[in-house]
Amino acid sequence: MLYHRFAKDLPFSEAEYTRRLEKTRTAMERSGLEVLFVTDPSNMAWLTGYDGWSFYVHQGVIVLPDADPIWWGRNQDANGAVRTVWMGDDRAIGYADNYVQSTERHPMEDLAQRLIGMGLERARIGVELDNYYYSAKAHAVLSQELPDATLLDATALVNWQRAIKSEEELVFMRRAARISERIVDGLVERVEPGVPKNEVVADVYRDALTNLDGHWGDYPAIVPLLPSGSDAAAPHLTWDGEPFKEGEATFFEISGCYRRYHAPFCRTIFLGPPSDLFRRAEAALVEGLEAGLEAARAGNRACDIANALAAPLESAGIERGARCGYPIGLSYPPDWGERTISLRSEDETVLEPGMTFHFMPGLWMADWGLEITESILIKDDGPAETFCNRPRKMYVKE
Amino acid sequence: MLYHRFAKDLPFSEAEYTRRLEKTRTAMERSGLEVLFVTDPSNMAWLTGYDGWSFYVHQGVIVLPDADPIWWGRNQDANGAVRTVWMGDDRAIGYADNYVQSTERHPMEDLAQRLIGMGLERARIGVELDNYYYSAKAHAVLSQELPDATLLDATALVNWQRAIKSEEELVFMRRAARISERIVDGLVERVEPGVPKNEVVADVYRDALTNLDGHWGDYPAIVPLLPSGSDAAAPHLTWDGEPFKEGEATFFEISGCYRRYHAPFCRTIFLGPPSDLFRRAEAALVEGLEAGLEAARAGNRACDIANALAAPLESAGIERGARCGYPIGLSYPPDWGERTISLRSEDETVLEPGMTFHFMPGLWMADWGLEITESILIKDDGPAETFCNRPRKMYVKE
Repeated sequence: MLYHRFAKDLPFSEAEYTRRLEKTRTAMERSGLEVLFVTDPSNMAWLTGYDGWSFYVHQGVIVLPDADPIWWGRNQDANGAVRTVWMGDDRAIGYADNYVQSTERHPMEDLAQRLIGMGLERARIGVELDNYYYSAKAHAVLSQELPDATLLDATALVNWQRAIKSEEELVFMRRAARISERIVDGLVERVEPGVPKNEVVADVYRDALTNLDGHWGDYPAIVPLLPSGSDAAAPHLTWDGEPFKEGEATFFEISGCYRRYHAPFCRTIFLGPPSDLFRRAEAALVEGLEAGLEAARAGNRACDIANALAAPLESAGIERGARCGYPIGLSYPPDWGERTISLRSEDETVLEPGMTFHFMPGLWMADWGLEITESILIKDDGPAETFCNRPRKMYVKE
Repeated sequence: MLYHRFAKDLPFSEAEYTRRLEKTRTAMERSGLEVLFVTDPSNMAWLTGYDGWSFYVHQGVIVLPDADPIWWGRNQDANGAVRTVWMGDDRAIGYADNYVQSTERHPMEDLAQRLIGMGLERARIGVELDNYYYSAKAHAVLSQELPDATLLDATALVNWQRAIKSEEELVFMRRAARISERIVDGLVERVEPGVPKNEVVADVYRDALTNLDGHWGDYPAIVPLLPSGSDAAAPHLTWDGEPFKEGEATFFEISGCYRRYHAPFCRTIFLGPPSDLFRRAEAALVEGLEAGLEAARAGNRACDIANALAAPLESAGIERGARCGYPIGLSYPPDWGERTISLRSEDETVLEPGMTFHFMPGLWMADWGLEITESILIKDDGPAETFCNRPRKMYVKE
């Protein structure tokens, strides 16, 4: 394993990348895969260190059982690969630019030729079938160009290896959490009736990106979400130029990001005296969160968190009808979740120390919404640790 | 056509959405499609107004020849759809939350049932095979669940309808261009040796988002790219906490965004006296840009721009080896291009008035890079108009 941390400013130690590659190879072997073609940018980065906004073209990492991974992508992006991956420069290979968004040729033709050149034309090759960055067309072309190979669904195979965080990763998530706290502190200070939303988002980005405790901030995989009033019924609206209004609740779904690691954190701010409805919902939600944190311990299951949350909400007559969380860590747009475990009643995955989740019981009702959430770490013993430490409540500014 | 502009703050007039839908239906008919399932968030927004960061789950718009489009997605996001699309509320339909990132069921099973319920089980259905938001798995499940339907590749069918901008769209792009100019002005003022990159990016976001001429700023589909020195060989690196350095060039690839419309704009800043190499490259690049702008006229072809650019670069001994531009307009992450025309020697698409491109002849060489670009509009007569108006040069701060 060639490794160039200092010249390249790689985020992690050689031992950490070795650990990741070995876990992945073990999972490949268990799935009977001779090769794994990884297109999820988060998986690419987790395995190799690759970092760049090039995922709008076809690219990937080829994981082999017995040789260093190969970064494959557009020629011009191989320049970014040799600057960011731990492997030697000869492990970054590019395809010609006229494969990009062409109607005559497809990058997967190039990939197929590379694999054939490596003697893998009859291999059992894992591909991430259900991923943003592996399109139906990519799969069709790769299948056609490799008629003797067996392409197998390896969706989330690497994502599952990411579930338990190393100490090195937790350092990054804690840095992200400090940023998340700073963003929420700033929101509580600045959100007032009459202040336009876009101006507040500019301040969110300042708090997200400028140095904190000597560390720089990275872009989060999801932009800030901050719908108000009846729009807060919709979980994924972004912002506009409207002012915040007296008598309205706004939820803020944000995350600090340190070198692609996230600690999502949501709080709601009510301007003016809240209605009884909001007060009752807040009380039930906070009770549910605390019950969920108690249940979020090693040996329990994902569904235990969801069920613990549901009880007080049901007592208050609130039916959510949605999962209440997902694993978090390293991510690229469009999602900061890991897309493996879901905190919901049907998911019986056993919780293990080092797993990290966004415990995210957003309430999105017919004409109002409320978000109070925590990013959490499953500990060896006892209830989950929250990454952020701020009052678990709806903030009211009267 | 039901239409609710004022209650919903739709960005465009009813006439504009009617125009778009009619163009799309004509293209569907020409391709023999009875239904079109659109997953590209940019196409979804262009057709219906839908706006929200929900594209990390499976969703789409069903376009029919004889009835209003249907927004289909996750239940909770239907709340966002009824708030942002021009169609009536009954045209937003959702699937249950336990379809999200499940290993037991897939959202495309729900979609198939919906289409069957509409009597479309034997229809010729267009799908966007090569799109980030239509995965190989989505296609496999939809094909399996609709054994009697014919699924046809409609990649970029809607994107092509977007190529020629309406006057309403051009208003938005000009607003985006004012933002792009403000960002570049701020960079030229603030970038100095010793200033950390992440601090400068925070200012970029401030200039991108805060009000300008009474209009708010939206998030661009690509984050700022700003590699320095030898890292500028790599076109898609983002930022870190390192300071800008004397003796280094940094290119800044940014775009203002007004309600999802972009006007990308790149300039390079050299700190200290530039080498002859940079001066010669700048001169050849500016000459190539000006030749390209002259060639960018209605009736000429996309390749004419590329060839006009190439001549002075070749004279200077610079071989680019990459396309030099792409269409722009409405976009969501991860790309602000429209993925139809490419400005390159093999693309013979005839240029028409109202087409808009990012004329993007970035130079990414072995150990340096230089970007000077223009977003352009093809006019009825004469050379292209640039959206931004700033000196076409490498900025030198000695």
